[in-house]
Amino acid sequence: MEKLKRIQLKDVEITHGFWANRQKINRDITIYAVRDRFEDTGRFKAFDFGYTPENGEIKPHFFWDSDIAKWIESASFIIEKTPNAELQSKIEEIINKIEEHQDENGYFNIYHTVVEPDNRFKDRSHHELYCLGHLIEAAVAYYNATGKDRFINILDKFIDHVIKVFTEEMSSAFSTPGHEEIELALYRLYEVRPDEKYIKLAEFFLNERGKEGDGVYGWDNEAYNQSHKPVREQFEALGHCVRANYLYAGMADEARNAEDEKMFEACKALFDDMANKKMYISGGIGSTHHGEAFTIPYDLPNDSAYAETCASISLAMFSNRLKDLDINSKYADMVERQIYNGIISGISLDGKSFFYENPLEINLSDRRRHTSVNHSDRLPITQRLEVFDCSCCPPNVTRLIANIGEYIYSYDDNRIFVHQYIGSTAVFDGSQIDTETEYPADGKIKITVANAKNKRLYLRIPSWCESFKINAGYNMYNGYAEIEINSDMFEISLELEIRPVLIAASPKVRADAGAAAVMMGPILYCAEGIDNDFDLWDAKINQSTEIKAEYSESFYSNTLRCEISLTDEESIKALYLPLKNVKTKPGTLKLIPYFGFANRGESDMRVWFKLIK
Amino acid sequence: MEKLKRIQLKDVEITHGFWANRQKINRDITIYAVRDRFEDTGRFKAFDFGYTPENGEIKPHFFWDSDIAKWIESASFIIEKTPNAELQSKIEEIINKIEEHQDENGYFNIYHTVVEPDNRFKDRSHHELYCLGHLIEAAVAYYNATGKDRFINILDKFIDHVIKVFTEEMSSAFSTPGHEEIELALYRLYEVRPDEKYIKLAEFFLNERGKEGDGVYGWDNEAYNQSHKPVREQFEALGHCVRANYLYAGMADEARNAEDEKMFEACKALFDDMANKKMYISGGIGSTHHGEAFTIPYDLPNDSAYAETCASISLAMFSNRLKDLDINSKYADMVERQIYNGIISGISLDGKSFFYENPLEINLSDRRRHTSVNHSDRLPITQRLEVFDCSCCPPNVTRLIANIGEYIYSYDDNRIFVHQYIGSTAVFDGSQIDTETEYPADGKIKITVANAKNKRLYLRIPSWCESFKINAGYNMYNGYAEIEINSDMFEISLELEIRPVLIAASPKVRADAGAAAVMMGPILYCAEGIDNDFDLWDAKINQSTEIKAEYSESFYSNTLRCEISLTDEESIKALYLPLKNVKTKPGTLKLIPYFGFANRGESDMRVWFKLIK
Repeated sequence: MEKLKRIQLKDVEITHGFWANRQKINRDITIYAVRDRFEDTGRFKAFDFGYTPENGEIKPHFFWDSDIAKWIESASFIIEKTPNAELQSKIEEIINKIEEHQDENGYFNIYHTVVEPDNRFKDRSHHELYCLGHLIEAAVAYYNATGKDRFINILDKFIDHVIKVFTEEMSSAFSTPGHEEIELALYRLYEVRPDEKYIKLAEFFLNERGKEGDGVYGWDNEAYNQSHKPVREQFEALGHCVRANYLYAGMADEARNAEDEKMFEACKALFDDMANKKMYISGGIGSTHHGEAFTIPYDLPNDSAYAETCASISLAMFSNRLKDLDINSKYADMVERQIYNGIISGISLDGKSFFYENPLEINLSDRRRHTSVNHSDRLPITQRLEVFDCSCCPPNVTRLIANIGEYIYSYDDNRIFVHQYIGSTAVFDGSQIDTETEYPADGKIKITVANAKNKRLYLRIPSWCESFKINAGYNMYNGYAEIEINSDMFEISLELEIRPVLIAASPKVRADAGAAAVMMGPILYCAEGIDNDFDLWDAKINQSTEIKAEYSESFYSNTLRCEISLTDEESIKALYLPLKNVKTKPGTLKLIPYFGFANRGESDMRVWFKLIK
Repeated sequence: MEKLKRIQLKDVEITHGFWANRQKINRDITIYAVRDRFEDTGRFKAFDFGYTPENGEIKPHFFWDSDIAKWIESASFIIEKTPNAELQSKIEEIINKIEEHQDENGYFNIYHTVVEPDNRFKDRSHHELYCLGHLIEAAVAYYNATGKDRFINILDKFIDHVIKVFTEEMSSAFSTPGHEEIELALYRLYEVRPDEKYIKLAEFFLNERGKEGDGVYGWDNEAYNQSHKPVREQFEALGHCVRANYLYAGMADEARNAEDEKMFEACKALFDDMANKKMYISGGIGSTHHGEAFTIPYDLPNDSAYAETCASISLAMFSNRLKDLDINSKYADMVERQIYNGIISGISLDGKSFFYENPLEINLSDRRRHTSVNHSDRLPITQRLEVFDCSCCPPNVTRLIANIGEYIYSYDDNRIFVHQYIGSTAVFDGSQIDTETEYPADGKIKITVANAKNKRLYLRIPSWCESFKINAGYNMYNGYAEIEINSDMFEISLELEIRPVLIAASPKVRADAGAAAVMMGPILYCAEGIDNDFDLWDAKINQSTEIKAEYSESFYSNTLRCEISLTDEESIKALYLPLKNVKTKPGTLKLIPYFGFANRGESDMRVWFKLIK
């Protein structure tokens, strides 16, 4: 097992290009948009603990603590880079309220104080430990941003209470969280405050899981929340996708921390199971809304895809940990697939609204197919919303964008890895590394490394890339181009050939049989009805067609056009007719980046297109 | 409007070929299989009126009268051709019980006598008038079979009661049936007992429909049971398919009887709407189980197709009426599509079990896709059952097969129409007509007409037929070959070219985009997993492929083989990969008649195949 060091957010500045643009929108608009909707919906007010059954105030949900925690974490990431008194004061206000309403014994949870105070740690389907996990992540981010450890201290007291209740008194009604998250959070906390008790508690939750037989609730299946087996025996990704990947991220942390090879093997198998059998081309995971869960391998229907934004984020988090334990570009490839597709499809281009589900096909006619009975099929919504009842995704995508810097590099004493190509300046381990690029709008990347002579530089060659140039000698090493850094001010140019490519799915994927999608570099493309005045399902792409790209400022990347074959409806004389009587006509298909769909009103949308020839 | 006369069952003997075989199974096996299951489930016993809430007997359902009525009708059709004391005695036994338990005022309904006696004609969603309709059809069939009119007399008394309650006292809680059927039954009764009161009652129900504003129940939509508009203003097929087509059949009867052109126009528009926009290639109608209803035009998903057997039967009944009012082969083409596909897929080859729903695609993996939550998607069953809780289809398919003779010919003073090619001898209107053929296993048809000199013979040329030969001069007339009968013993040979053909759907049908089905003559084909050891969805048919046919005794028609292209899985190195890296390999697809699917155990099944070239 490798143990590359992940760079910290403080080590890196995103200076230009795709992500600088995204971070600006995140910093200027999204963080306030999420805050305002959380104000509107009573989530911030809930920290006043004013709710009583009688007084008509909005009843808090048992996951509201986590929504605000993720917002604090996002805001902390932002103020770490761009000091902002308004945001900081809001965070302090919340910390004050947490301190004020924390139980003497350290316990803190809004719902289980104002609604069900007598049922603390009695219902595994409630999210007390999950909320604590997110509060811990928020406290760590706030500490990193400000150096202030008051929030951590408050939570340390709560953690002590959890240790007592779960590991000493064993007085809780369950022994492991119903929704994982606290495991990875405890490792995160340990990074800034290396107290072994945090590791011990994380290990307790990891090691108890799958033993306790209390996994069954709600969906009546222990696999739903990964309680069906001990974690080291889990090799198939099952159940609720976000729970699963938060758990797997914690497992990866433990594998690294304890050098636990069995845990590491499980992590690698779980990653491969998702990457090779259970992932949409967008990176989306979880093909059913029932339980927001994984289904069977290759079961990836496009129109009913759940593909939750948070699930993509959680898989990026898990992958980002594995990239440092196992030198193989597939992990950073996965991060790339997520951050350019399934994660940012979750947020509108203007940064104000969000998808919880990210379908790969929209047929508006489906929405009103039941004309003569009172029924609607359950399908994903077609337009982003500013807030959801269960609004986990908005603050999650906000924190991911604010924290994208953490995904770029890792290193050890002799090696520097470039996992993502993002215009940035980073300083770590005595070196400075600058990346200059407009990637993924084009494939030219210039990297300058100062003060790292005699180390080796590893540049990820994305698996989608069929041709690249490096202006130096290199060896390929598990998907990375390995280059000797032979000067104190080392400059290197990488040029990845980025051109539109037709992509097929494994023939095991029934939903995509006989069809192809279009990708250009890491970006998946889709067509919308708004750009194409024909039925999208009738568009057939010729396998040998040339697809033309054009830079678009509005998407901050390219749009595409390709020649297609359409059915000549003049030739259609009946509902069913001999195939030989069907005539075709040429047409042009306009494609936009998948992440940009549904930004111009409600429209049909399609990723997979039938082929001719 | 034309007014061709439909031949009566008594006029025709099915002597050989496909339908003689089917009728033998129907007569020897199916009629007893349905009877036995109706015995097992208490349906026959219910006619003893023994149920009380206290005594533990099976509670009758409010549609059970209709199940037994359809069985009596089927048995009557059978004994009309093949006297059978056992069946006749069973029918007499039921008639005795009906007579015994009929109310003094004429009313008869099991449920509304033993369960809810105080709620007669109070709930439009109950099926009192529907049951009466089926009892009338049964009584007419029994009268035709035996000359005994006791059953008709019993029902006449009930009809008088209905006339009083609905049209004189107006004391019912609704004015038209929630489930249509009685309308067509009253016209049927009028044929054997021409009392104008039956017509008046039918007209009352037809003319009141869509006026009364009491259509909303259950599915909360007046279109569900065709109560959204006056019938003469209905041009779009909407709502519950069986209710719709039983209504439309009654509308066609009224159009004919009253020479009502507005009604006739509505009938033609409704037929075209179904035939051109809302019908599966199998003839199935109703693409959703929600309300067993029509949806929007071209919305024809294959795996979740409802396509109820009874709906196909009801559309055949409607079409068979229209063929006599409007000389156009499309109506008999529709009957043909139904009787060789969507209707007989509803019954197993051994005649013992039944499909209620007839999907056009089965993917067994779908059935267990939810591995980690407790949920099953709602999909049609994959194997036929011997009886259902709502067991309308088994006795319906039985009566259709027993009565298939009625669909073959019609005539007027100068013309004889041959609508279906079925090996048979018929005597009507002073002429005798013999058809000798193994159709649809082959296309050779020899027809002899005795004593019809100087009339014209009209032979339907099926719309699927691209080439045919007739050994005499003819003119084409709306899809029929018109031939002068120029001798007293006129012989003519028709040879329809029957060969496998690839069929496309209109590009408006999203579910079938880029795919083709195979038909050979009127028979639709499908592939089953049991015959093909690859994923059926991966099979791609070359548009120019030769499809080979071989006669199969077990299906009493042909099976087919064609060369296909499959994905070479050796070339698949990832879940997603450049299309150009996907290699193909040749394979062979075995196809069987669609009506024969699911007769050899549970299996994947597919009708529509992707194409290459």
